[in-house]
Amino acid sequence: MSHKSDIEIAQAKTLTHIKNIANGLGIDEDRIEMYGKYKAKLPLDLIDEDKIAQNNLVLVTALTPTPAGEGKTTVSIGLTEGLNKIGKQATVVLREPSLGPVFGIKGGAAGGGYSQVVPMEDINLHFTGDFNAIEKANNLLSALIDNNIQSKVNNLNIDPRTILWKRVIDMNDRALRDITIGLGGTANGVPRQDGFNITPASEVMAILCMATNFENLKQRLGDIFIGFTYDNKPVFARDLKAENAMAILLKDAIKPNLVQTLEENPAIIHGGPFANIAQGTNTILATKMGLSLSNYVVTEAGFGADLGAEKFLNIKSAYAGLNPKCVVLVATIRALRHHGGAKSEEYNTPSLERVKVGFKNLEKHIENIRKFNIEPVVAINSFVSDSKEEVDYIISTCAALGVHAVLSEGWAKGGEGTKELAAAVVDVVENKATQFKPLYDWKSPVKDKIATIAKEIYGADDVIYDKKAALNLRRIDRLGFNDFAICMAKTQKSFSDDEKLIGRPEGFVVTVREIEIAAGAQFIIPILGKMMRMPGLPTVPASENMHIDNDGVISGLS
Amino acid sequence: MSHKSDIEIAQAKTLTHIKNIANGLGIDEDRIEMYGKYKAKLPLDLIDEDKIAQNNLVLVTALTPTPAGEGKTTVSIGLTEGLNKIGKQATVVLREPSLGPVFGIKGGAAGGGYSQVVPMEDINLHFTGDFNAIEKANNLLSALIDNNIQSKVNNLNIDPRTILWKRVIDMNDRALRDITIGLGGTANGVPRQDGFNITPASEVMAILCMATNFENLKQRLGDIFIGFTYDNKPVFARDLKAENAMAILLKDAIKPNLVQTLEENPAIIHGGPFANIAQGTNTILATKMGLSLSNYVVTEAGFGADLGAEKFLNIKSAYAGLNPKCVVLVATIRALRHHGGAKSEEYNTPSLERVKVGFKNLEKHIENIRKFNIEPVVAINSFVSDSKEEVDYIISTCAALGVHAVLSEGWAKGGEGTKELAAAVVDVVENKATQFKPLYDWKSPVKDKIATIAKEIYGADDVIYDKKAALNLRRIDRLGFNDFAICMAKTQKSFSDDEKLIGRPEGFVVTVREIEIAAGAQFIIPILGKMMRMPGLPTVPASENMHIDNDGVISGLS
Repeated sequence: MSHKSDIEIAQAKTLTHIKNIANGLGIDEDRIEMYGKYKAKLPLDLIDEDKIAQNNLVLVTALTPTPAGEGKTTVSIGLTEGLNKIGKQATVVLREPSLGPVFGIKGGAAGGGYSQVVPMEDINLHFTGDFNAIEKANNLLSALIDNNIQSKVNNLNIDPRTILWKRVIDMNDRALRDITIGLGGTANGVPRQDGFNITPASEVMAILCMATNFENLKQRLGDIFIGFTYDNKPVFARDLKAENAMAILLKDAIKPNLVQTLEENPAIIHGGPFANIAQGTNTILATKMGLSLSNYVVTEAGFGADLGAEKFLNIKSAYAGLNPKCVVLVATIRALRHHGGAKSEEYNTPSLERVKVGFKNLEKHIENIRKFNIEPVVAINSFVSDSKEEVDYIISTCAALGVHAVLSEGWAKGGEGTKELAAAVVDVVENKATQFKPLYDWKSPVKDKIATIAKEIYGADDVIYDKKAALNLRRIDRLGFNDFAICMAKTQKSFSDDEKLIGRPEGFVVTVREIEIAAGAQFIIPILGKMMRMPGLPTVPASENMHIDNDGVISGLS
Repeated sequence: MSHKSDIEIAQAKTLTHIKNIANGLGIDEDRIEMYGKYKAKLPLDLIDEDKIAQNNLVLVTALTPTPAGEGKTTVSIGLTEGLNKIGKQATVVLREPSLGPVFGIKGGAAGGGYSQVVPMEDINLHFTGDFNAIEKANNLLSALIDNNIQSKVNNLNIDPRTILWKRVIDMNDRALRDITIGLGGTANGVPRQDGFNITPASEVMAILCMATNFENLKQRLGDIFIGFTYDNKPVFARDLKAENAMAILLKDAIKPNLVQTLEENPAIIHGGPFANIAQGTNTILATKMGLSLSNYVVTEAGFGADLGAEKFLNIKSAYAGLNPKCVVLVATIRALRHHGGAKSEEYNTPSLERVKVGFKNLEKHIENIRKFNIEPVVAINSFVSDSKEEVDYIISTCAALGVHAVLSEGWAKGGEGTKELAAAVVDVVENKATQFKPLYDWKSPVKDKIATIAKEIYGADDVIYDKKAALNLRRIDRLGFNDFAICMAKTQKSFSDDEKLIGRPEGFVVTVREIEIAAGAQFIIPILGKMMRMPGLPTVPASENMHIDNDGVISGLS
């Protein structure tokens, strides 16, 4: 077991030139746009629908997570190494990290230990500029809105009190959550209440991740719903002639990024929407790119399967015509102890009894995945604090349910530690995969769609609508958005909307407090509880312990 | 004469691979970091002080400009083409454009007509991400400041009313000039007044452009002065342990960018501070990189010579030990008519009388350049509305002053139109250059330094200090910043601080209203009048007329 930090392991690796990774996928180096020697953008014309239909998509998701997360990204990367080790041609397709967590508590999102994507510093920092492009496109629309309110020419009569569109910045900055803009006199615009969200919460991010080509991107940008005029007419981005300039800012961001794993296997990293407020998975184009170029694609969706996987399947896969053939449910013994009642200081203390109680959480996720007509594999992400009896219990109990549960040791051993997991996944893909089916039809009534998710996935008895949510439903109907997908915004800490209800809660109802509209992304977003769209920095920000020497070597980035 | 737009001309050009441009400078392609096929970053170890001392630096500046500008960038690029045409090895070194003007009125800044740097779309959009990195480093410091005010641990006791550090965004967005942040309760920070500047006005931009290496950059970032504690002690970025994380965000932005001109000559484009509020010229590292790689470097400094050139010489050249051997003063017949009293609707109407009167403005700039022990060449940037008698008058009147004035036709003809200008520049460099001398010693008293600029360059009789400025002087003294350079903030429209005083005003005094501190950049900034650090969008933003087709081909970008 190594005691090196993630960044030390990543820096010790001698990377191969990105053109070699491209060559391994059958791409000539002239076709890629290099960003230095180890990053590249891939042209969209490499996407091939015939190959997508032939190749195999594997989704990595998790049980209901503890605050530290259960290592989905690490398992996704490790599994990809393992698949390549056992002779499959596999690519990992992931989300891009946000700068906010990098300087806050959580750290970056490039995997960990011996299952990382590299160059990890670049991936965790500006990477190829996609987040910046999204931020600029979002904020250009904001500037155009306020400029139109200020302007006497072409004034759209926008009521500033109705504007739903916020500015974004990729930074944990709580002081920007609730602000007043346009102060200081007539030259400085019209005063109004506003706020900044973090960039992964931007609808532009959600749109980029749903777009199927450049034309579709531009169409969606024009469809963004901003608010209302004083005479109650809806205003869209296209009313401000914003969609072309926004698309111009995104002309490179739409292209998926190619990097490598520590074992020099291909990694495509593209887009990064939050999973509690947005769809929580990389771009459709990146997934399609991966499936066009390799026989296996391993991808990840944020938080637990009730959030990320549900959206991955009902929104992304349904819309894009993807057919995931296996779902890997990541579990940790720590999280199972948590669901069995362990306090955070007890997470590292073995307790078969707690694991037995906590298993109910995993069992519900297993049942849920099967509702989509997909067979799960359970990956037990190995920790030194795991006891053999706890691990054996999970393996045998899963076996009784007909599910293969495998210890995943990618963090400590890379691909050598995930060969058994890879074999289990291949077994499902080759022997048990059929055609996945979404849980609901987008064309069903809104309340039916929400009820399906709440009852089938969360296990709720019923759905209650607050007064505001009921009004929102009428607005959605008036605007003609009934056929949109449902992008649930719910705590990741529980199946229910009450984060204290761990394990497998029963006999509860969920309350929809309000329903937001992301017309460009074609979502409606029922809000179950208070959602945070702009995190704050911790008492001691991670930035304080970072260092860079005069040769540019970074330490303290995780 | 072509009737194509700038972008049509640029798009019609088949670019050569950037590795070929690098090869032409003697750089192996393995040494550069490509950003696609036509942009690259250059490693700092290519900088060679011996070669810098041997090679020739030419500064392009202008007479006092009209609002449209007089085409310094176009002339700089054209002159570089001309120098290469007549057998000199020349590189143009320029600032990076800001996104704000691209979507506002002014348009991009990649030259014009047949004197452009390409790929113009990329250069005018996100380019290699430098502006974004600067923005993020600036805004990380802002988030750390507000987080410290909020935090009970390590609280520095910062008085929010004294904070001088503002957030930035690279966007014309007037509604962000004056805002209130931290609203909405205790979880959202401490309410205070704030505002966003545009990114080119960030001190981080000024610092990046003054840094001589990575260590120096980090030192300067730590030196940033933020404000005071409640007990009146100064607070610096290093007190928040911010400088390493900021430097990490700038690790790639510090490397100069290589692109090409329309005639496939090298162009280095790096950094872009405003010239009215900051130093208005590209990074020191880019200028040194150019001089390390080619025999001639043509570079540009913003607005008229009273602003850009004065700062280029007294701040940048004095600090970095550069020795500019020739200054090209760009004049247009239009601007000379303006200084002769023409109204804007008369700018295109020939008038020898007005040109004769307006010549006094150019004459003062010629005198000023000679005060630095540098010989000027006048480039008359050709317009179709120029009459032969006007042009001939300028050429002969300059000749009487011993100055070579040459018609520059780079816009219409590229390097073919600037060979005579190139020859005139070479004549000065080879036959008339000695050692340039700055106008003042940084170690002189602050008021002496300001008086030298005001009297010698502007032609003022005296300098008056408002009460606030006098207080600021005392603060500068108390903080020990007396040895900093003077970075004057003044209207670009007049030698004086009154924009209505065109031509060569005399018998005036300038008033210093306040004096700002950029401790990391090592400037103090006397403010002469109201300076705009956040532009607004026009009534019809340029974005409305932009278009991008499904193949990513852009139109309407200028």
